[in-house]
Order: sequence, then structure tokens, then C-alpha cells
Amino acid sequence: MKLAVIPGDGIGVEVTAEALKVLHALVPDVSTTEYDLGARRYLRNGETLTDADIASLKEHDAILLGAIGDPRSVPAGVLERGMLLPLRFALDHHVNLRPSRLFPGSATPLKNPGEIDFVVVREGTEGLYTGNGGAIRVGTPQEIGTETSVNTRFGVERVVRDAFARAQARRGKLTLVHKTNVLVNAGGLWQRTVDEVAPEFPAVEVDYCHIDAATIYMVTDPARFDVIVTDNLFGDIITDLAAAVTGGIGTAASGNIDASGTNPSMFEPVHGSAPDIAGQGKADPTAAILSVALLLRHLGKEEVAARVEAAVEADLGSRGDAPVVTSEVGDRIVAAVSA
Amino acid sequence: MKLAVIPGDGIGVEVTAEALKVLHALVPDVSTTEYDLGARRYLRNGETLTDADIASLKEHDAILLGAIGDPRSVPAGVLERGMLLPLRFALDHHVNLRPSRLFPGSATPLKNPGEIDFVVVREGTEGLYTGNGGAIRVGTPQEIGTETSVNTRFGVERVVRDAFARAQARRGKLTLVHKTNVLVNAGGLWQRTVDEVAPEFPAVEVDYCHIDAATIYMVTDPARFDVIVTDNLFGDIITDLAAAVTGGIGTAASGNIDASGTNPSMFEPVHGSAPDIAGQGKADPTAAILSVALLLRHLGKEEVAARVEAAVEADLGSRGDAPVVTSEVGDRIVAAVSA
Ligand SMILES: CC(C)[C@H](C(=O)O)[C@@H](O)C(=O)O
Ligand SMILES: CC(C)[C@H](C(=O)O)[C@@H](O)C(=O)O
Repeated sequence: MKLAVIPGDGIGVEVTAEALKVLHALVPDVSTTEYDLGARRYLRNGETLTDADIASLKEHDAILLGAIGDPRSVPAGVLERGMLLPLRFALDHHVNLRPSRLFPGSATPLKNPGEIDFVVVREGTEGLYTGNGGAIRVGTPQEIGTETSVNTRFGVERVVRDAFARAQARRGKLTLVHKTNVLVNAGGLWQRTVDEVAPEFPAVEVDYCHIDAATIYMVTDPARFDVIVTDNLFGDIITDLAAAVTGGIGTAASGNIDASGTNPSMFEPVHGSAPDIAGQGKADPTAAILSVALLLRHLGKEEVAARVEAAVEADLGSRGDAPVVTSEVGDRIVAAVSA
Repeated sequence: MKLAVIPGDGIGVEVTAEALKVLHALVPDVSTTEYDLGARRYLRNGETLTDADIASLKEHDAILLGAIGDPRSVPAGVLERGMLLPLRFALDHHVNLRPSRLFPGSATPLKNPGEIDFVVVREGTEGLYTGNGGAIRVGTPQEIGTETSVNTRFGVERVVRDAFARAQARRGKLTLVHKTNVLVNAGGLWQRTVDEVAPEFPAVEVDYCHIDAATIYMVTDPARFDVIVTDNLFGDIITDLAAAVTGGIGTAASGNIDASGTNPSMFEPVHGSAPDIAGQGKADPTAAILSVALLLRHLGKEEVAARVEAAVEADLGSRGDAPVVTSEVGDRIVAAVSA
């Protein structure tokens, strides 16, 4: 397996190291290429992501990313719009996969969480993330700034189809989340696409929920969800909330997938670089390790993926109130999967 | 006081009746004009909102609205885009005010909610709600649907200024919620406007939070918020979540305010028409009653507004597990404010 590794910034570096420990323990023949991308490189030479980076990344079977960004030294937007998003677009990562599970012992803020186990399939290459929009008369009282959400039948259909297939392989329930009552052009396209693909998956029950109502269900009845399919921005919002109700972004993993298989898919924890706790060895590498499980499953290694998840589940369940020590979590998971 | 009343559909009719009971008990000289707007009228004659309706509504000091819509018989979007939103735009309701408080006895889904008491100032006349966007090749594999968020310095500044003033009159903390790292045109405008207005309110501490992170804080540390200012769509999302964490939309009130005073402002519960429980006398009129409190405060009647809120707070605290009977809640609040 040829793996590209982008440790990134802050705790990204630390959690990636643990994730790689686990990967190496399970898959003997992994060759890794490390990429220097993120705040450090940007601050050194102003580069965010070059064509050469993209071409070279494409030579791999998959990509593991830690976390990108340093809000103390890089203005908001520079790395997001200069590196993270261009990477998703260049590699056509249209399925942004974000599973949410309430693991035993997780610190959910909810009183009665119920059994939380769902997957959000967030579209990753359209919507408000396309950089369509502009501004005129900037800095004057007449300034106008626009952002345009772009949605295509092609783009919506492929992600909807992917979500239906996942629902069919799970508990058979798909919920479209959108705001069709206000965003009638985009919403109409999403709703009609779901309606038209549905007959191909007769075993899947289809539901719809406005994004505002979805946030309510997320805290009052998250167990109702199995697979959620939604656009780029709503997916961004609902997955952070989902991570929070399942005990925090310390355990939320994600995949940026090109479902066509043309380009390598990328796996990463949902959390950021957390510069405030970087370098102290106390970041929880669980989300990065679970991202390795997603990576393994994506590459067809279901059995080892399940082993990682079982080990993580057991580890979370036995932690008690002990503070997290980054390397010890990795060591424990390695021991468990090697046993 | 000349009050326009739009009871609307479903439980809107029932909760409005209770809210009016309370208003009449407190303010002797209220004359009301009832407007037949919503699903019933639309189903009868296809009308959503006429120019004559708007002209006539403008003749009032304020508007009280129950709830609009009947998802069983009116397609999503028809009344939203035909009546609710045109009303907000026609009456220039740029300050969409949504207070969130955790009342004693409220059924919050959070384990450790803390002291929740904040106000969301949602922009009400711009953003993705302007109906800017379109679709081509609808129904074909080449369909494209767009939605454009429109943001002007004029529109952003007036709502930011309003939010600063509210923060100054409260605990002195203002949080801008946006997605500046992705939506750089709109986000840049919002961020710069906040930065430029801030010096006029030196006692107000300014904070910023991405919308995704804001949903996390909303369930892990909602007590951190005092005043949130945000755009139309983010405000829609975050206020439903806020309502959920404070025990449900049964108690969430809102004001659609023209801060210039040119047009009458409109007050309404955040909840919908809930056709599933309509006509059974079990809808909670608390949100509608609290909307009357917002209305009274907006018209300068601070003392009576506070009386309504105190009565609601006491009532919620003493309910226990008894089921809600719509008219009894109204009677109890009337008795309390008249005592
Ligand atoms: C960093 C940012 C661009 C990104 C997004 O908005 O997609 C992040 O929030 C995420 O969810 O992966
Ligand atoms: C009904 C709908 C148009 C409306 C909105 O999105 O603003 C509602 O959700 C609200 O929050 O008042």
C-alpha cells in the first residue's frame, strides 16, 4: 500500500504518528511518503498547495491527513481556500463520509442520548464551497459580498446514490437534510434526485428534514438517524454537532472519498490542529486512529478495519477519568490489534 | 395600540388566542385586526400575501403571528416563499430577534446546561433568503441549481449595530457566528463590519465562532453566549438548536423587527403550526405568550413585559409532569399578571 501522509500542524503531527503506529502494526507492506503541507510550509515560503504536490499525491493509494492550520499566525481562509478545499476539488472527493457513534464511556453532553450510530454523507465538491461569489466596493458603505451555492444533477446524484448504497448496507434508512422550503432551486434538485434514485433501493426508507429541524433531532433524538445525505455546508454544520453529541470531536473520523476510484481518497480526523494543546502529548489520537479504520475499509480491508474499531471501543470504555496521553493511546490500540 | 393578528394555521390559532388573553389583561386599549393568511386562505383562493394585505398590515403598531403552514396540503416553499418571507422583506424586518433562556423546570436534553441566557440577532432581509438563484435544464441530467447569498454593508451594519447595542445593555459580550474561512466574500464583510463598529461600543467584548463550532458550543457550553449576531441562514439553524437545548421550541419566542421603526414589527413563536396536535387543546402557548412580552418591550412597555416573563417563569417552574392544556396555561398567566 502506497500511503501519502500529511501530518499538518499542531496536534495533527502527534495524532498522525499514533495512527501510523496502528496502521503499521496491521498492514506490513505500507510505504509512506510524507508531505509538508499546512501552516509551517505556508509561513516558510508562502506555498499552500502546488500542482506538483497534487500530481505526486495522486500517485498513492490513499492519503492520511492530521490537521491543518494555525489560527495564531495564518489568517482564516488562507489554508482552507488555498489547500484543504483545493485538495478536495482536485481529487474529486465528492463523498465526505462522517460516521457518528456513541462509544461506551464517551462524554456525551446529552442526558438521554440513546443508541447513536449514523453516517453523514456530505457532498464535498459543490454547494457554497465552490468559491463562486465575489465582492464589489469592498471597504465602502456600498460594499456587496455574494456567495453562490452551485448544485448539479451530476454532483448530487452521485453522492445520493452513494448514500443510498450505504443505507442499504446498514439499517435501511436515508434522511435528506436540506432547506427546501427556502432554497427552492438547490433544494428542488436535491429532493427530486432523492425521489428518482429511491426506486433503485426499494429496501431503503426515505425521510426528509430541514437543516434547522435536523439540529433539533440531533440533540433530542439522534438515534432516529441511520444515513444522512446533505450538501457541503449543511454537512459541515451537522457533522460538527454530531461529533459534539457523541462526546466531542476527539473521536470523530472522516473520509474524503472519490467514489469512482480515480483519485486516492483521504482520511482525517474531524478535529483541527488545536495549537493550544499542541506539543504537550495530551491530544487524543482516537479520531486519527478511527480514520485509519475508515481508510482500511475503503481499501477493502474490512476485517482489520473492524479490529481497529473494536479496539478503540474497548479502549474508550476502559479509560475512566484518566487523562489522555497521546502515545499511550496509540500503544494500547497497537497492543489490542496485535493480540 | 393597534395590533394586527395573524393566527395562521394549526396550533397557531390556539396559541394566539392565549397570547391575546394575556395582552388584553395587561393593556386595556388594544384594538386588533385579524388577518386570514396562511394555508387555509391559500387552499381556498390561491392567495398567499397581496399588496392590499401588506398595505393594511402597515397601518398597525405591531403584528402578532401564530404559525403558518400545513405540510399535508401545501407544498414546501409555497407559504414560506409566498407569504412569510415576503412579509419580512416588505416590512424590512432586518432584526430577527430570538432570545434563549433556560427556564426552571424546562426539559433540556443537556446533562449540564449551565445558565443559558442569550439572544440571537439574526439578520432577516439578506443572505440566502433573498430568492437570488435559479435553475436551468431542470429535470435533465444537466440540471444546475444555484442559490446566492447577498450581503450588503448597509444590511450587515444595521444589524451588527443593533446587536452591539443589545450586548451593551446585557452582559457585554457579542459573538459573530459565520463561516469566514470558506465564505470569504460574505464572511469578510461581516467580520470587517463587526471590527469597525466595535470601537463605538468599547464595553462590549467581541468574539468570533464558525457556525460549525458554534453548534458544538451550543451543546457543550451554551452559557458562554450573551448576544450572537449572524446571517439569515446561520441564524435560522442556530436558533432552532438553541430552542432545543433550552427545552424545546414550546418556549422559544421571536421578534421580526424593523429597527428603524418605519414598519410595524412582528412577533411570533419559533414553532410551526404542528398539524399533528392541532385542535386538541394541548399545544403549549408559552412561546406565543413570550412573544407578547417581546412585543410589549419593543413598544416601550418594559415593566409589563417583565411581568409576563416572570409569570411564565413561575408557571414553567411549577408545572411538574402535568400535561399542557392550552387554555389553562393562558388562564394561569392572566391570573398571575393581573394579581
Ligand atoms: C476547515 C474547513 C474548511 C472545513 C470545512 O468547512 O469543510 C472543516 O470545517 C471540515 O468540516 O472539514
Ligand atoms: C419557515 C421558514 C421559512 C423559517 C425560516 O427559515 O426563516 C423558519 O424556519 C424560521 O426560523 O422562522
